[in-house]
Amino acid sequence: MRVLITGGGGFLGVKLAKALAAKGEIRGEPITHLIQADLFQPEPVEAGFTVEGLALDIGDRAAVDAAFATPPDCIFHLAAVVSGQAEAEFDIGLRVNLMGTINLLEAMRAAGNKPILVYTSSVAVYGGEIPDMIEDWTILNPQTSYGAQKAAGELLVTDYSRKGFIDGRGLRLPTVTVRPGKPNAAASSFMSSIFREPLQGEEANCPVSEDYPIWNSAPRTVVKNLVHAAEVPEEDWGQNRCLAIPGQTNTVREMVDAMTEVAGTNAAGRITWKPDPFVQKICDGWRAHLNPAKALRLGFHQDSGFTDNIRWFLEDDIRK
Amino acid sequence: MRVLITGGGGFLGVKLAKALAAKGEIRGEPITHLIQADLFQPEPVEAGFTVEGLALDIGDRAAVDAAFATPPDCIFHLAAVVSGQAEAEFDIGLRVNLMGTINLLEAMRAAGNKPILVYTSSVAVYGGEIPDMIEDWTILNPQTSYGAQKAAGELLVTDYSRKGFIDGRGLRLPTVTVRPGKPNAAASSFMSSIFREPLQGEEANCPVSEDYPIWNSAPRTVVKNLVHAAEVPEEDWGQNRCLAIPGQTNTVREMVDAMTEVAGTNAAGRITWKPDPFVQKICDGWRAHLNPAKALRLGFHQDSGFTDNIRWFLEDDIRK
Repeated sequence: MRVLITGGGGFLGVKLAKALAAKGEIRGEPITHLIQADLFQPEPVEAGFTVEGLALDIGDRAAVDAAFATPPDCIFHLAAVVSGQAEAEFDIGLRVNLMGTINLLEAMRAAGNKPILVYTSSVAVYGGEIPDMIEDWTILNPQTSYGAQKAAGELLVTDYSRKGFIDGRGLRLPTVTVRPGKPNAAASSFMSSIFREPLQGEEANCPVSEDYPIWNSAPRTVVKNLVHAAEVPEEDWGQNRCLAIPGQTNTVREMVDAMTEVAGTNAAGRITWKPDPFVQKICDGWRAHLNPAKALRLGFHQDSGFTDNIRWFLEDDIRK
Repeated sequence: MRVLITGGGGFLGVKLAKALAAKGEIRGEPITHLIQADLFQPEPVEAGFTVEGLALDIGDRAAVDAAFATPPDCIFHLAAVVSGQAEAEFDIGLRVNLMGTINLLEAMRAAGNKPILVYTSSVAVYGGEIPDMIEDWTILNPQTSYGAQKAAGELLVTDYSRKGFIDGRGLRLPTVTVRPGKPNAAASSFMSSIFREPLQGEEANCPVSEDYPIWNSAPRTVVKNLVHAAEVPEEDWGQNRCLAIPGQTNTVREMVDAMTEVAGTNAAGRITWKPDPFVQKICDGWRAHLNPAKALRLGFHQDSGFTDNIRWFLEDDIRK
């Protein structure tokens, strides 16, 4: 089985690549070749099969077609322009998030091998005037360009699957935290940095109020769910190939308290609390209370407390 | 005010053009120029202002940009590849319904005059595993490529409006019946032809069972609602620029009985009842029970019985 990860150089892409290297197979079929594609050629992970780093701009249709010269059997589509950047630079968001997804879908359709596609959508597809508990049948009413582009991609993933061009499954990811690395242009960037930086002795700012609730999931859980998504039998998906995966709702205060519980009081003292109206406005459009009933029925994994998020970050991203 | 109608040569486009000719203004601003654009250059309607027929393929980005050399102030976007054709010819559906909409949105954004856009979506955006009464917050879960492409366009209309690029408003039209003219490639084509042809002495086939319920609206009502959509104040739309407009639910049997009530028993006898599994499958994915609460709040018009649909068809399209 030939596997392609777009955004394969990002933190989630690398963690997913490592998980696939450890697992060695998808649906019982051995992985023979893994391509980690990203805008800049990623460092390939170590594995018992061939792993290749590929520089690929998914907004470039010809480049995407070239990458499908030997068609992958399973694609994890993680590449995206994040919310803050897509809001500030509309053209780039449209080009990568929507047109890039269409380029990939069209390349898969042309390849004709009905590959598995695991598409990453986001809780950012929810917003506006909708009931507070989000159910599987709640309208996608995004209040960011990122969310709108992701939601439009969802519709296409379901339609290409219904037509039999692909075997698609789309996951609306909660905010993934604690994310290793540097702050990025996502409006949600602070949702990792207020833990990541203080845990490493640095200051970080929280731009929203401490009672702000966040629908979140740990990278370990999200990676398990990405792999699980590829393995759920096609006939179990029903008439919508995209769903909200499980997460947990915590206020910023609860998350900070969990950090204190795991790592002591020093870290929390390194958080500054300077409000940022630009970030607060984007975040106010997001939702934190979801009932991911379908995902639970399909066996997706669930977090069990933010102390795990902190503990796993220390284990996976700091202490080794 | 300069007005553009895409699909301006279609039955709804022509009826809308005539309604605008009679009204003469939008939001109190006199219409000075009306462009009826369609794939083949339409015959312009008569009006007290300049009306021009324009051959325009909205799937052709350069052609769309050229049509915006003098930017319209108000665009009614009716052009589409209908459901049956978009299902049979995937490429053409994607090119016109999704890419054509993107081409128009991008041309409006580039024009920079924040035009009014009235976007026509469809009840075909609903389907799959959703509760039976469709509310304003029900997920769009289309089970046709036509519906998926329309729903993706909705997300962009709301996002371009939120960004201030356009003043968009999208209407999910019920099945519009009785439609004059010839049968077309829409799976819903029979929903007009089983009245239109028998009322003119010809046979027509009903490919679904007589208890099949149809969410429908008369052309007169739909045209009134398209004009109303342009005039609802922007601040009243809230955080989703697209909504289901009012319609009425009738079974095929009730609609045939209404025809008999208005026009006597001869017409109904000219309907044949040969099931068509291809059409039935598409229609089974559609929904017939909607609660268009937001549209009613915003003053959209409502039908009051299928006998009107029959009567108005005879008055507007046959007896003159």
